[in-house]
Amino acid sequence: MVRNILFIMADQLRRDHLSCYGARHLDTPNLDALAADGVRFERAYVQGPVCGVSRMSAYTGRYMSTHGSNWNFVPLPLHNPTMGSLLRPQGLRVAVVGKTHIAGDAEGLRRFGADPVRGDGLLAHQGGFEPYERDDGLWPGPRMPADQGYARYLRAQGFGGDNPWHDWANSARGVHGEVLSGWEMRHAHLPAAVPEEHSETAWMTRRAMDFIDECGEQPWCLHLSYIKPHWPYVAPDPYHALYREADLPAPVRSAAERDNPHPVMRGFQSYVASRNMSDDAMRRHVLPAYMGLTRQIDDHLGRLFAHLKHTGRWDDTLIVFCSDHGDYLGDHWLGEKELFHDPVAAVPLIVRHPGASARRGVSEPELVELIDLLPTFLDAIGAEVPDHLLEGRSLVPLLLQGQPRPAPRELAVSEGDYAFRSFVREPLNQPADRCRMFMIRSERWKYIHYEGLPPQLFDLLDDPQELVDRGRDPGLASVRDEHFAALFDWLRTRAIHPTVSHQAMADWTAKEHRVGIHIGVW
Amino acid sequence: MVRNILFIMADQLRRDHLSCYGARHLDTPNLDALAADGVRFERAYVQGPVCGVSRMSAYTGRYMSTHGSNWNFVPLPLHNPTMGSLLRPQGLRVAVVGKTHIAGDAEGLRRFGADPVRGDGLLAHQGGFEPYERDDGLWPGPRMPADQGYARYLRAQGFGGDNPWHDWANSARGVHGEVLSGWEMRHAHLPAAVPEEHSETAWMTRRAMDFIDECGEQPWCLHLSYIKPHWPYVAPDPYHALYREADLPAPVRSAAERDNPHPVMRGFQSYVASRNMSDDAMRRHVLPAYMGLTRQIDDHLGRLFAHLKHTGRWDDTLIVFCSDHGDYLGDHWLGEKELFHDPVAAVPLIVRHPGASARRGVSEPELVELIDLLPTFLDAIGAEVPDHLLEGRSLVPLLLQGQPRPAPRELAVSEGDYAFRSFVREPLNQPADRCRMFMIRSERWKYIHYEGLPPQLFDLLDDPQELVDRGRDPGLASVRDEHFAALFDWLRTRAIHPTVSHQAMADWTAKEHRVGIHIGVW
Repeated sequence: MVRNILFIMADQLRRDHLSCYGARHLDTPNLDALAADGVRFERAYVQGPVCGVSRMSAYTGRYMSTHGSNWNFVPLPLHNPTMGSLLRPQGLRVAVVGKTHIAGDAEGLRRFGADPVRGDGLLAHQGGFEPYERDDGLWPGPRMPADQGYARYLRAQGFGGDNPWHDWANSARGVHGEVLSGWEMRHAHLPAAVPEEHSETAWMTRRAMDFIDECGEQPWCLHLSYIKPHWPYVAPDPYHALYREADLPAPVRSAAERDNPHPVMRGFQSYVASRNMSDDAMRRHVLPAYMGLTRQIDDHLGRLFAHLKHTGRWDDTLIVFCSDHGDYLGDHWLGEKELFHDPVAAVPLIVRHPGASARRGVSEPELVELIDLLPTFLDAIGAEVPDHLLEGRSLVPLLLQGQPRPAPRELAVSEGDYAFRSFVREPLNQPADRCRMFMIRSERWKYIHYEGLPPQLFDLLDDPQELVDRGRDPGLASVRDEHFAALFDWLRTRAIHPTVSHQAMADWTAKEHRVGIHIGVW
Repeated sequence: MVRNILFIMADQLRRDHLSCYGARHLDTPNLDALAADGVRFERAYVQGPVCGVSRMSAYTGRYMSTHGSNWNFVPLPLHNPTMGSLLRPQGLRVAVVGKTHIAGDAEGLRRFGADPVRGDGLLAHQGGFEPYERDDGLWPGPRMPADQGYARYLRAQGFGGDNPWHDWANSARGVHGEVLSGWEMRHAHLPAAVPEEHSETAWMTRRAMDFIDECGEQPWCLHLSYIKPHWPYVAPDPYHALYREADLPAPVRSAAERDNPHPVMRGFQSYVASRNMSDDAMRRHVLPAYMGLTRQIDDHLGRLFAHLKHTGRWDDTLIVFCSDHGDYLGDHWLGEKELFHDPVAAVPLIVRHPGASARRGVSEPELVELIDLLPTFLDAIGAEVPDHLLEGRSLVPLLLQGQPRPAPRELAVSEGDYAFRSFVREPLNQPADRCRMFMIRSERWKYIHYEGLPPQLFDLLDDPQELVDRGRDPGLASVRDEHFAALFDWLRTRAIHPTVSHQAMADWTAKEHRVGIHIGVW
């Protein structure tokens, strides 16, 4: 029986950096064990290839076109449901330890006379999550807020200064004790200044255990949301050096992609992260830190899973592990993220159902999306899924044995908006409201629509590495038309009316007569 | 100079029932005079052919697909801007006298800890309008709330009972003093039980004057929103009998429309209001009441305009007159509304700008939409128009002389959802979330898309009465394809992100570097 939900997310973690997904250059034994005890989804897509969009979709169960938060830090519009607003009424305590990237719509809340810093207003401002230990892991300014949990913790351990997150947890030390910033990739081979036990990943794992222990018999949904292996790429000892000698996979890229890329891809290739990650020496310098940070998460998950087993929670908790998107790491002459190649848009998704009839050790080829998580959580605890609010579908039938298999999902959709990227938008001379991108992934094809520009098209059967863009191939016009039409169908059927259920719509006419509106009678 | 805005709306008023729009069977001298002193728009479309959708679009400046309130009484989702939220910060007092049909999202507000019955929460719950005298004019139940303004007023005049709105203002009296309900069309020839001076239209006009007088030198935006000539069709003496002998226009309809209608039209033709209004005798019995109610509004507007002139407000107030949609009145074998023929979807729109350089007595052929009103109001008072929130365009360039004429609008769009109409949806066996309708009106054509059903297509040049549906005409496939593609373009460019402006999107990358996020640097 599912009483609790442990929803673990890593940030910027590539699927092919987990050994259960085929990685050979590093091991992730604890995630492998979770996969061996649950369902490993082979084809799970995020609904946006940047943190903010992807997370808002996962947290609301809605596509970007529906939730309206079209990039990082864009406040989540207040009409959206959230994990908190839907799971809390079911009796679960719904909290976050770590990152959500949610920018609350404080202006909207104040317009309604609600208070974004306490009570229900605070929960709304936090996207529905109780901020048990909210930490977005980006304290880029010179000063870190003194009352921030990890800042307090670091200071209590003697790691002080205006910004201990930057100076200790995300920087190394030079020979004269000077701060070598983790923002600069040339320091990626050095250990973080903070000892491993005080790193953000270790601290967050302990805070998750604190929350679970504190809940006792109260059912809960905890979003444990690690910041790593996201930038800055600097790992604590010994993880900084675990893979220095590893046999790294070669970047996936072609000369044609560099010489004649799609115009939007060309824009992203001009970004400094892309230029640097396309340099083999730099990439080889940085990758081991990224891998070390990944392995560190795996080690801590081992501790967390042991804690769940020890406390009995292993048997009544649905466990989900995923990431919010991947990282190009030099593939396709790109760094960072923001476009739709599989290394970025397709993520690891491992789900362990605690039930006796759960499927275990299964590799599931079904096309799924992270917006499926919220319906899955509701379904798993036996609650109704409000289909006028949620655009995903419950994965529970795929988690249990002997369930009728639902009709396969025909398309996965992901969206982006490069308006926020001046280095892409300006050379193309696109107005800010004409930079939306739509990815339509069908069984065989991945089609990407750009407003006012040619589409991209990849044949995932013959070209799984997505090296050959068939967006202008005259022989494939009908395939493109088909996917463009599918995008149109999809757009016409979004969940645009969050305040009325489908059942209420269907019951309306009868109700109107009941309340005494008698239009047109003689 | 525009200081104030008087936004007058009639409910269910057909454009061709105003003499300035060509009516010959009744006179509306005061609206004719307004048109002679301002701009009369020949082709103004509502964004939905029912009260709720049309009004939510007018009040938010957004299409139905964007605001999400897809029928009457569907709570307006809280992420929408409103006339109040945008005009109040400009120093205007923004209030309503009469109908808005807004159902506030009380559940949403309570989820945020906001209070829907006072302060800012109340304003949000009222769709941004201060409810100076909110009265939706539908008190269908057996009991009218005692604290409702018009109920209090009627009772104070000695018109009592549980529901004086129904029993006095919207019913007649039989020979034995019994209540003859105005809901029943057979009573449409009888005078309302209430004397004219105490009718809803008269009372609302006085309340509007009260508001204007009370404001004094404080700038204001008043939405004076008459309930009439909407159902129930019963007019007070002498308006019940003014047009009993009039030479009524014949209904516009063809045998083909009755014998072989579009499946959705067939559903609406089965509605009792359609069946009865298609009966010539019933129609002739009812129409004079509808006309009387219209003429009554015109007479009261004469009083209101005189009051504005007397108090000096005529010279600093932008005046708008429109309706929220029309009424089929038996045309096309239909009664009521809900579909997209011009008698319903195209409405009167008269705008008088008080400025010295205003265009006066002009008939304007530009294609316009009621979502243009809110941008017009902002523009007229010199405020910025937030184009990430508002989907309409300011009409101010069309109201003043010597302005550069903007590029003509190529399309008007209107939307509906027949999910709420069991008598349409059930015979078609459509799921509740597949009943959306989209009207695309171009210079020459009107195209209507129905999910899973053939489209409709009308040639407004050769067939201005829309009697011949060319939706399946093989010779017009390319016209249909063009309009279908235009719908797709339109859907891809909705204002989906209410919490971030276009300028902020364009400035993002530079800002990111300023705050110290340095991703990808060596």
